[in-house]
Amino acid sequence: MDFSSYFPIWKALTPKQQQLLEQNAIYRKAEKGTIIHNGNVHCTGLLLVRRGQLRAYILSEEGKEITLYRLLDRDLCLFSATCIMNSLQFEIAIEAEKETEFWVIHPDIYKALMTESAPVAGYTNEVMATRFSDVLWLLEQILWNRLDKRLALFLLNEAELENTKTLRITHEGIGKHIGSQREVVTRMLQYFKNEGIVTLSRNTIELHDFKKLKELSK
Amino acid sequence: MDFSSYFPIWKALTPKQQQLLEQNAIYRKAEKGTIIHNGNVHCTGLLLVRRGQLRAYILSEEGKEITLYRLLDRDLCLFSATCIMNSLQFEIAIEAEKETEFWVIHPDIYKALMTESAPVAGYTNEVMATRFSDVLWLLEQILWNRLDKRLALFLLNEAELENTKTLRITHEGIGKHIGSQREVVTRMLQYFKNEGIVTLSRNTIELHDFKKLKELSK
Repeated sequence: MDFSSYFPIWKALTPKQQQLLEQNAIYRKAEKGTIIHNGNVHCTGLLLVRRGQLRAYILSEEGKEITLYRLLDRDLCLFSATCIMNSLQFEIAIEAEKETEFWVIHPDIYKALMTESAPVAGYTNEVMATRFSDVLWLLEQILWNRLDKRLALFLLNEAELENTKTLRITHEGIGKHIGSQREVVTRMLQYFKNEGIVTLSRNTIELHDFKKLKELSK
Repeated sequence: MDFSSYFPIWKALTPKQQQLLEQNAIYRKAEKGTIIHNGNVHCTGLLLVRRGQLRAYILSEEGKEITLYRLLDRDLCLFSATCIMNSLQFEIAIEAEKETEFWVIHPDIYKALMTESAPVAGYTNEVMATRFSDVLWLLEQILWNRLDKRLALFLLNEAELENTKTLRITHEGIGKHIGSQREVVTRMLQYFKNEGIVTLSRNTIELHDFKKLKELSK
């Protein structure tokens, strides 16, 4: 397969490292709905998405869950391989939200690479920093912001006002309406998009899931 | 100063790297209550604690806060230097909870070290993984755990940290730590008092029934 063109920092590896990594990456395909990794079970390995969509989530003892982040094409999932670092003291689960092609990278091989290669360790830092940012954002949403509510309400009102499902408005424009910064609006719209509630194109927001929007706006 | 004996992976650095790091680490002392880093302002630098106690927290627009983690002797704080990684897209604040001696490491110097040294990048990964684990734990607490459990756990941790059965802390202060309102904390403390678990006086909580606290914290 074309692993080399999907692994993000391929060119920073030595030929020997490239060979080792490629030989220890197993290509897999998962149907929509497949649980690829279940935190309680084992150290599955790192997941590199070729095409599709994975969802990382945590699960309570009572079976409640919350989505932490999504993995799309070329994204790398570290936390299906918490054994690569001593300090990763938690477990998440990974599910295929769409039919997904991906590689499973052997955790021991990746761990060894991280130890000898500053680029691999540095890239791992960037991936973890991205997830950390996602999770902190989520925490803030849960604690304080009801921006999702405000935004959902605004979109519903606009759609009713304009009598259309396709809103022509900039993210900055929305920010002015609901008292938030453009970046914050963009991030929440991305979240709505990932949830299948809207689709986004340049200065246009198409509303799809009115039921979810109404639930959010309550 | 004795920076070299406090920096965790000192021996994995080359003499040149050691020299560079030490020359770009500024020794500071902060009184209890000092805000050392305020996320909105700038990239302060990494903090290496020599002696004392720092608190890392996030702050809402309305001024609400919640503690993310504590930094004790020899701990390194990355997130007072989010500029060292592109993907660190959030801001936290750091406060001295006790009189604290620490070094501020120049972010550009650390960033350069991370790029060239696999041990430094790897160590950074471990530090971030620890914080990530802390924050995910917190998220789970907030989402799913009952307040009595969170409060019991907080009281036990504080007692261990301060090595005392008599905690000097306001209900508002506790609320900030565990992400609850003062009234809610007061109510739960009253419940604990009624159960004979604690006694309360002005800004002081005396722990009595450690067995019950431990049961609650499970």
